[in-house]
Amino acid sequence: MANSSFRFTVLHADSQGRARRSAFATPHGIVDMPAFMPVATQGTVKGVDARSLRGTGTQMVLANAYHLAFRPGEDVVAAVGGLHRFMGWDGPILTDSGGFQIFSLAERTRITEDHAVFRSHIDGREVAISPERAVAIQESLGSDVAMVLDHVVALPNEPGLVREAAERSVRWARRGRDAARRADQALFGIVQGGLDAALRQWCAEQLTRLDLDGYAVGGLSVGEPPADMYRTLDATVPALPADRPRYLMGVGRPEDLLEAVHRGIDLFDCVMPTRNGRNALAFTGEGPLRLRNLKFERDARPLEAGCPCPACRHSRAYLRHLFLAREMLGPILLSLHNVTYYQRLLAAARQALAEDRFGLFRQETIAGWTAAAAEPR
Amino acid sequence: MANSSFRFTVLHADSQGRARRSAFATPHGIVDMPAFMPVATQGTVKGVDARSLRGTGTQMVLANAYHLAFRPGEDVVAAVGGLHRFMGWDGPILTDSGGFQIFSLAERTRITEDHAVFRSHIDGREVAISPERAVAIQESLGSDVAMVLDHVVALPNEPGLVREAAERSVRWARRGRDAARRADQALFGIVQGGLDAALRQWCAEQLTRLDLDGYAVGGLSVGEPPADMYRTLDATVPALPADRPRYLMGVGRPEDLLEAVHRGIDLFDCVMPTRNGRNALAFTGEGPLRLRNLKFERDARPLEAGCPCPACRHSRAYLRHLFLAREMLGPILLSLHNVTYYQRLLAAARQALAEDRFGLFRQETIAGWTAAAAEPR
Repeated sequence: MANSSFRFTVLHADSQGRARRSAFATPHGIVDMPAFMPVATQGTVKGVDARSLRGTGTQMVLANAYHLAFRPGEDVVAAVGGLHRFMGWDGPILTDSGGFQIFSLAERTRITEDHAVFRSHIDGREVAISPERAVAIQESLGSDVAMVLDHVVALPNEPGLVREAAERSVRWARRGRDAARRADQALFGIVQGGLDAALRQWCAEQLTRLDLDGYAVGGLSVGEPPADMYRTLDATVPALPADRPRYLMGVGRPEDLLEAVHRGIDLFDCVMPTRNGRNALAFTGEGPLRLRNLKFERDARPLEAGCPCPACRHSRAYLRHLFLAREMLGPILLSLHNVTYYQRLLAAARQALAEDRFGLFRQETIAGWTAAAAEPR
Repeated sequence: MANSSFRFTVLHADSQGRARRSAFATPHGIVDMPAFMPVATQGTVKGVDARSLRGTGTQMVLANAYHLAFRPGEDVVAAVGGLHRFMGWDGPILTDSGGFQIFSLAERTRITEDHAVFRSHIDGREVAISPERAVAIQESLGSDVAMVLDHVVALPNEPGLVREAAERSVRWARRGRDAARRADQALFGIVQGGLDAALRQWCAEQLTRLDLDGYAVGGLSVGEPPADMYRTLDATVPALPADRPRYLMGVGRPEDLLEAVHRGIDLFDCVMPTRNGRNALAFTGEGPLRLRNLKFERDARPLEAGCPCPACRHSRAYLRHLFLAREMLGPILLSLHNVTYYQRLLAAARQALAEDRFGLFRQETIAGWTAAAAEPR
């Protein structure tokens, strides 16, 4: 591995697919993979304190360098001791670079070969972020894993634009790598290329030559059908080195996680457990529960029997009441439950991998969600 | 005491005032008094889970029968096992009756001798709450302490109206007492009478004859100057029986608590620690901190050295960032800090009382807040 402060170890490779059980050692601890990172865009998983987050089984979190650079500023974070101390999270942190914001804030963004220019969503001032600057921001923040700046485009899109963005992402990855200085920070590349299998493969091969510490698949889960995403993973993952972690950015639904693990992905992040939790949707082994539903009015059961999360010390009736009464505690508790659900799902997947029964686990788990969904609820 | 499931014991009476260190035994545990109850109007202290609430040092909480009767309905609460199980709080709970809403929701309320009629703030339907119905609701909820329905009016007000409301409150208290059936629920009376010392004394004497389990001073902290409140306590408390807990409703600022303890009050509730916490104001031994202030931008210190609360595991800089970024975690953490601050203040007051140095404690604590406020901050 390029950076000796990190070590990625494949503990078991699945006999029926590309899935693997692995461990990623970082300066702030070991991450058991496949792993899910809750999203702490602005330095907090929304509604969840760092200590409660630890209780969900989370080992690593994602924060966003773009957002933190705008507010409070990476210099402020550095002045009070870096991102770990700032957030009160002593485990590994991965920071995204701002590439995703080129897509999500497209109407506020201009791209040149040198850099992206963002018009601040806070005060309107324009800020240029180059590949070098993206690395410098993340070095100031002091995350364990930095992401190169990439050029993310919407899908579907004009083939020429998708190609141009993928080629630029490769050039920017090289510039980011050449700018990186911190020995205690890993740098991951990001494969772009839309739904074009050949372009994805080319991009993966180009990035592999840069000998980065890990590789992400980016630019997916931007509205395309799941089947397109799975097909793109089938084309991309084999072109990535087996001895580096593989990270699927911004994904996704529970079934997406299992399908992507099957296709060789080791790491995920997604706002879904927290965002859906804030909107009264709880993930369970029998599929999602929509807590506002009248049928939960007098339901004394927890969301899920056996779940150790703080929400499951309460009844569904109470959780429903909190949402109808617009009490903050509803979003707080359902966010905790959903993150716990994702972490328990990944822990069960790791266990199944260690016992070489992941294929069956994946089928049965997905069938459990689907069977319940087919019943009248 | 009228109800044998409860026991109020004065452990020490202050030699320099009416303050006392006492203990109130309820079916759900003992409350060390003087005590502060955080407010869980709709069955949750806003943003704070029951387990975290226990960590603040809280022994007893207040919920609101009026609000819970409208949503989710006291029958729903009863159906899932009563208010303790509903909230996930196994300590004592006091419920207010709805009398305060006659004042706070005055434009939605009509009063007759028989009952108050409320037009629902949720769906506009009209609901009559009589003194008997107020007790029945609280018996369905299953709180440890129920409050009689009282008639609260704004201050200042026409003397005739203040007198009429106080007299009605006495008649309603008798009807509430005669309706009460639960052996495991105490019933407290509420002294009304505005700022009229003679009327307060009359009301206290009338209620004392009803042999209730405790006595509240109500209708204060509705906008009158603190000196008027203290004067009213000086007139009222001596007319209440020494062997029952005395509860000052809806109060208040830290200095109000110490002044009222000095005047013989044993129990308080107030939204101030949580409401101010949601608005980025933190209580400390050196007076309040307004976290949005620029001077905290790079302040690596906790809100208060030695405070064991979850907020004080973070820097002021981080807490400020959470508020500027409009993150839920800001209100959550400051609510926890402020409730912890109030509980530590009351614990220190109890300790000072036990050591018969409450007078000095009160002076020095208030001086600490004032001295810091006089300095440039």
